[in-house]
Amino acid sequence: MLQLKAKLFDVEQGQNEVAMNYTKAIELGLTLYDRMHLKLNGKHAVAILDFAHEELAEDEVGLFAEVSKLLDAKLGDVISVEPLQRPLSLDYIKKKLDGKILSQKEISAIISDLMHERLSPTELAAFISAIYINGLAMDETIALTNAISESGDLLKVNGVPVVSMHSIGGVAGDRVTMLIVPIMASLGLKIPKTAARAISSASGTADAMEVLCPVALSVVQIENAIQKTNGCIVWGGAVRLASADDKLIKIRNPLRLDPKSLLLSSILAKKKAEGAKFVLIDIPIGKGAKIERIEEGRALARDFESLGLSLGMQVRCLISDGSSPLSNGIGPALEAKEILATFENNEHNMLFEKACQMCGILLHMVKGISQQEGYEMAIAQMNSGKAFLKFKEIIAAQGGNPTITSKDIKIGEFRAKIFCDERGKVSHIDNVAISKICRLLGAPADKRAGMILKVKKGDNVEKGDEVAEIVASSKQKIDFAMQNLHKAQLMEVEKIIIDLV
Amino acid sequence: MLQLKAKLFDVEQGQNEVAMNYTKAIELGLTLYDRMHLKLNGKHAVAILDFAHEELAEDEVGLFAEVSKLLDAKLGDVISVEPLQRPLSLDYIKKKLDGKILSQKEISAIISDLMHERLSPTELAAFISAIYINGLAMDETIALTNAISESGDLLKVNGVPVVSMHSIGGVAGDRVTMLIVPIMASLGLKIPKTAARAISSASGTADAMEVLCPVALSVVQIENAIQKTNGCIVWGGAVRLASADDKLIKIRNPLRLDPKSLLLSSILAKKKAEGAKFVLIDIPIGKGAKIERIEEGRALARDFESLGLSLGMQVRCLISDGSSPLSNGIGPALEAKEILATFENNEHNMLFEKACQMCGILLHMVKGISQQEGYEMAIAQMNSGKAFLKFKEIIAAQGGNPTITSKDIKIGEFRAKIFCDERGKVSHIDNVAISKICRLLGAPADKRAGMILKVKKGDNVEKGDEVAEIVASSKQKIDFAMQNLHKAQLMEVEKIIIDLV
Repeated sequence: MLQLKAKLFDVEQGQNEVAMNYTKAIELGLTLYDRMHLKLNGKHAVAILDFAHEELAEDEVGLFAEVSKLLDAKLGDVISVEPLQRPLSLDYIKKKLDGKILSQKEISAIISDLMHERLSPTELAAFISAIYINGLAMDETIALTNAISESGDLLKVNGVPVVSMHSIGGVAGDRVTMLIVPIMASLGLKIPKTAARAISSASGTADAMEVLCPVALSVVQIENAIQKTNGCIVWGGAVRLASADDKLIKIRNPLRLDPKSLLLSSILAKKKAEGAKFVLIDIPIGKGAKIERIEEGRALARDFESLGLSLGMQVRCLISDGSSPLSNGIGPALEAKEILATFENNEHNMLFEKACQMCGILLHMVKGISQQEGYEMAIAQMNSGKAFLKFKEIIAAQGGNPTITSKDIKIGEFRAKIFCDERGKVSHIDNVAISKICRLLGAPADKRAGMILKVKKGDNVEKGDEVAEIVASSKQKIDFAMQNLHKAQLMEVEKIIIDLV
Repeated sequence: MLQLKAKLFDVEQGQNEVAMNYTKAIELGLTLYDRMHLKLNGKHAVAILDFAHEELAEDEVGLFAEVSKLLDAKLGDVISVEPLQRPLSLDYIKKKLDGKILSQKEISAIISDLMHERLSPTELAAFISAIYINGLAMDETIALTNAISESGDLLKVNGVPVVSMHSIGGVAGDRVTMLIVPIMASLGLKIPKTAARAISSASGTADAMEVLCPVALSVVQIENAIQKTNGCIVWGGAVRLASADDKLIKIRNPLRLDPKSLLLSSILAKKKAEGAKFVLIDIPIGKGAKIERIEEGRALARDFESLGLSLGMQVRCLISDGSSPLSNGIGPALEAKEILATFENNEHNMLFEKACQMCGILLHMVKGISQQEGYEMAIAQMNSGKAFLKFKEIIAAQGGNPTITSKDIKIGEFRAKIFCDERGKVSHIDNVAISKICRLLGAPADKRAGMILKVKKGDNVEKGDEVAEIVASSKQKIDFAMQNLHKAQLMEVEKIIIDLV
């Protein structure tokens, strides 16, 4: 460990850089751009080494702006400087760049170095780029998923079996999780669900659930809730399950690099960290969904199932119709309201139907009964009110008020109706357009904003019929959304008589 | 531009991160991990956006440790926050990751965004990884080299033609530049040479030249020296020619990513920024050199020549024997001493011979005379003392003492002899081993340290013959080098009688 006197170079380099006297550095066997670890009063920084020839004496270190700020260093401060060993995982990243297959040990080393801040963001970017271009073999994906799943907190759930479900998303109003979790929990299965907030849509499951109760629970709070009620619906961002994945996503995002192997490992590593043994994954397909073609959905399903098997989880995938929204109300409050109303009125709507069918598959997986038997068990839990009771217990366990009813849920007071401008048959309602309009209205941040659909695919409409109503907390938002409505292509209406010749 | 009150989150995130109230961010149409530009009192930072749900009010911004240090921000400071547009060059980097060919405009945009700090190091790393794996077509390499050559300072040299030379390196004692520059300059050609310092060897041309005069000249100082003397030998690191290349090298280095297209563009962009019209590139090959096989050297030569042509430079490559050192003295002072002695004694050694042959090729390129005529012209400049006179002028123009002689050059006072331990014929003297030993002795930082070879390849040696002498500024360094000598495999001696059967 060297002790060097600080000189401050008030220049920003765009990254952490530090300079040492050339003679001193060479004498120590250092090379240009080696990584150095610097410490001062408990603050530390990792910086890339530059050489200085005349500006620095042998007992001095030159701190560029980024580094002097990190260390809070003043001229003359004595800085501890130590060269960092080149981590072995750099060789493994290079190996992947060269298109070779990495061993399980090599992948673990990369994730371990990533978690210990021994890899720089640029080195991780090279790793992700290599995966994007050269792909990962199934064995590598397995090793990566295992390493990621162990990289953060692990949920400890007593009593088996633990089940879970996940949708790759993209369908407006698809809140089946809020029905499936209480149904399965009411049947005695453990189902700890960590859900996402909306990134580009009007509402995520976590956003809608937050209308009813807190969702930012700690690991211990989640474990307690599961202990009490068998289930929970919490926000995954509040806990650090599989946290290496979060670090990788930060680098993937700006370039929108979503190689399939990282998509698979990202989802299943979280499921494994949740302790799930049985996992059902919904892959909605169709126009306006994330995946358009069924072949693509099937290929993804096969990869999920085979990766799951290798991780010690039974994973099944279903391909569902994702070409239309699944509820009438879109937006956090409207979706929570519709879920509560479904329970209250035991309404056999699309959400009810999809949830019970998915429970049927999960029960078939867990209990070895037929899907039909499982489906009927799920319907029985809904009809008997047991699922609703369980939902209230879960709301209470997460810190919400279990007596809340659909009527209690406030939605925005400003409204406008959308009318049809031609006669015909509704041939498509676009998920992407709905998200866009709802976000203009303020969703998901404004939980009370959103849209209420008044028609569904296949309905015949007349010119002037009301097809939807938009909801917001200000007139300004309503006007803004109305102005942008024509750009969004919310619906397609097919003429019944196409032409008169 | 938003004005938000700072809250400080005293957590290091490993990169610049900033948090905003979720509601506010979504309302503004921001997405997780968008890039934000922050300003406070003339200091600024670019940071990745996180969302905060309860911790921040709508008029607050949360600064993580790295960012608050960069801005020197205190609690409650009003920070200007502005989302940065996603640069278009990100799409072009993605395109390269997808294995597609980039247009000249797209490559210019990447280099321009790189120079304006609009690309993060991770995004550049993805670009370099994509080039490493997918390669660059010749048209892309041309565009990249042009963009890089224009990215920094440009030397303005009056009067044509400007010639230049470059060695890809790896041969100990190869200081032909210090002969070629004065020979060519004495013939009236402009030859501004920006040379490198040693990275892994005992001495670079800039290190040896620095024994005789300053080499860290500014662009204006270089232009003045050329004006006066036609030539210079300066350190390239002191000027910012083709400076995008320096930024790329910082990212390439930790992963040792040296795709051929970046090697080519790195060298020729600098030559173009020097204003060179005729460029001679030396590719030493053989055991212990950077390139071992002649086919590889020839392929590289073809690429250099064709890229040069497209850049408007006439580039010729020679493949030379790089399997042995080129001078007896190795190390900055010993090499400078040997060059001066060569001039003083007009010694027809290997350096003299190689330099005159290379000048012959350059003169053939520039003047259209035969290589033999050019070679004889170079020898005449040496024999007449005109080249030496020019060398003294150059030393003076760079700020050195032109009356310096080889005897004035001090070398380390501590010495040890290395003896041969078997009888036979010297079959190989290893450049890499020489570098290693010289660095243990303190070179290149200690200019007086190094090695003097007493034999050359092909010499017959007896057990006990002196084969080399090592030189250092302390006894400790000598002892240390002697202890490590056996590991370095300095020479190979072939038995003349291999076995007696």
